[in-house]
Amino acid sequence: MKRPIVLLTDFGHRDPYVGIMKCVIEGIAPGARVIDLVHDLPPQDVRAASVALAMAAPYVPKGAIVVTVVDPGVGTRRRILAAETQSAIFLAPDNGVLTLALRARPPRCVRAVERRELFLASVSATFHGRDVFAPVAARLARGLPPARLGRVVDDRVELPIGEPTREESRMRGEILMIDRYGNAITNIPGAWVRRGQEVCVRGKRIARVQGAYGDVAPKQTLALVGSMDTLEIAINQGNAAEVSRLTPGLEVEVRAER
Amino acid sequence: MKRPIVLLTDFGHRDPYVGIMKCVIEGIAPGARVIDLVHDLPPQDVRAASVALAMAAPYVPKGAIVVTVVDPGVGTRRRILAAETQSAIFLAPDNGVLTLALRARPPRCVRAVERRELFLASVSATFHGRDVFAPVAARLARGLPPARLGRVVDDRVELPIGEPTREESRMRGEILMIDRYGNAITNIPGAWVRRGQEVCVRGKRIARVQGAYGDVAPKQTLALVGSMDTLEIAINQGNAAEVSRLTPGLEVEVRAER
Amino acid sequence: MKRPIVLLTDFGHRDPYVGIMKCVIEGIAPGARVIDLVHDLPPQDVRAASVALAMAAPYVPKGAIVVTVVDPGVGTRRRILAAETQSAIFLAPDNGVLTLALRARPPRCVRAVERRELFLASVSATFHGRDVFAPVAARLARGLPPARLGRVVDDRVELPIGEPTREESRMRGEILMIDRYGNAITNIPGAWVRRGQEVCVRGKRIARVQGAYGDVAPKQTLALVGSMDTLEIAINQGNAAEVSRLTPGLEVEVRAER
Repeated sequence: MKRPIVLLTDFGHRDPYVGIMKCVIEGIAPGARVIDLVHDLPPQDVRAASVALAMAAPYVPKGAIVVTVVDPGVGTRRRILAAETQSAIFLAPDNGVLTLALRARPPRCVRAVERRELFLASVSATFHGRDVFAPVAARLARGLPPARLGRVVDDRVELPIGEPTREESRMRGEILMIDRYGNAITNIPGAWVRRGQEVCVRGKRIARVQGAYGDVAPKQTLALVGSMDTLEIAINQGNAAEVSRLTPGLEVEVRAER
Repeated sequence: MKRPIVLLTDFGHRDPYVGIMKCVIEGIAPGARVIDLVHDLPPQDVRAASVALAMAAPYVPKGAIVVTVVDPGVGTRRRILAAETQSAIFLAPDNGVLTLALRARPPRCVRAVERRELFLASVSATFHGRDVFAPVAARLARGLPPARLGRVVDDRVELPIGEPTREESRMRGEILMIDRYGNAITNIPGAWVRRGQEVCVRGKRIARVQGAYGDVAPKQTLALVGSMDTLEIAINQGNAAEVSRLTPGLEVEVRAER
Repeated sequence: MKRPIVLLTDFGHRDPYVGIMKCVIEGIAPGARVIDLVHDLPPQDVRAASVALAMAAPYVPKGAIVVTVVDPGVGTRRRILAAETQSAIFLAPDNGVLTLALRARPPRCVRAVERRELFLASVSATFHGRDVFAPVAARLARGLPPARLGRVVDDRVELPIGEPTREESRMRGEILMIDRYGNAITNIPGAWVRRGQEVCVRGKRIARVQGAYGDVAPKQTLALVGSMDTLEIAINQGNAAEVSRLTPGLEVEVRAER
């Protein structure tokens, strides 16, 4: 069986761009299984894509080719990278989008994707998803050894996303993303927090740490350990991001009891 | 061949949640076919999900595992159910979302999904789609007998969705959903109505029953027997819900000629 | 292996319509590969669908059944066509949606899809995607010879989409579509234009032809040869359609240097 291909793009759903990538994949690797991770990311938002990729990375099937096309630099000389980890190959433009996923799983090897004979015969200046990423992913799914992609590199671009910090009585981190329900997912490890602790933004307490959404009344704000094993701010049956004006990058502080 | 898995969630398309569920499924049941029924339902709207599921149920492929994750009670003690009908297994939280689908096809057996060894090793408080529904569905797709899920239950939650009524000269029902075109789909059986009958909302006639959209001029309101075999209110090349302020739950009356 | 099926509809993502079509396909042709080309087209916009189909057509896998359901005339006597080209079969309502795809690849044979025994047993007036297109596509995917669909026709509907024109010092064409990034894709062949030429709309110059988005500073407007091999108007890391009020159908002029 061919290796599965996992797709993450900012192409959205109103244009045929993702579908065209899948047509190219099917043409080169007939029957290859393609999993849509997410396509409706904010256009050209490399940070948001990095977070989505990090959320999914622990669950990617063994042997998968994980293709990220969020690529404001398409058509310029920016490189395309293939990072091999223990369980997958990550294909992405060299713009930092792999930062969070690879921080948690250091790659065995990172290569520049350079061999033009692996691409479509004609490569446009605007749609490398179709002309480069799709055909390279399809060839890897069919068994192409990654060593055939290009030379090893060790100077990839990193995004400046901070690490959470921890002092005696307070922990600080930031909001990584807001999801469709208005939940704010932070980078503060769930293992650091305890029920009852206070969660503050802009210097004000907005919630206490609970165990589940249903631990507070409907429309009440809470914090809890979310699905990334990090602290999440939410409203039971409501939208916390709207109510408390939470946005990606905003600092979050947790105060331990004395 | 593995049993197909049909997915219905309110996860939307801007977050990687559905994609992560598919990664988990592929990891446990490689090559299993996954069909996206719909993911962009109104968040946490159990009634809307129940309607979408009922629309699709007659067309679900034989043997399918139909997974519904619209789950405001995630993380609380709400149960997860597996309902076996003649042709499929429906997995869903016990919040009434199966009401309409099972009203039309009474299940042979309903079980609580309880065996933790069927879930992912670590179960979060917020994302049972990934940690419970996806792995259980994947194991059923591979052939796990439903009897292994947990004990039989007979007290599932039902939604209070009314049945249509019929008197001598009038029929009454309600709007079940508004679709993307602004068509209002009701629960009044198509077999009850005849061409030329008057359709009223809020005490006013807004349309007559016709045979097809094209039976009235563009921008005219009509009613017709829609794809659920029930009465539907529409505008030929227009949006009936906007023009006549139609919403789910609104009462609809059809007046038979004398 | 079954022939792949490529789906293009205007059903959107908030209703279960596409998912129901896939359920029908899986029921008739178990395991058939279905590729979503695009579903979030403007409702009932035959012109937009024609453009999307033409963008994808060169990349459709060999042997594919390409199904287009953008069908304002559903339920009327409009025909359904099956157009066989060298590499694929295009199924679509006879409303002109195939105009651009077939202009570039004249079909060997176009048939009316007429044999009711190929449809679902009951055909609604509103959802031929489910009742006609899906079952016919599934049967073709399984190997049904197209000659069994119905009689050959030679009077299909054409959309009035103009061809670009070229005089000595100026070329004229029109905007075919605006994509999610706000890029305006025109029908002016890339081979006609040169770097440095001026691009005008409404009589005013708005950009010069460049090689790639990155050839101008962020937020600057440019034109370049896009992924359809035609002229595209864009803003580097911005939205050209909003800034310059570009819409489908708007005339675009390119002025050659003297």
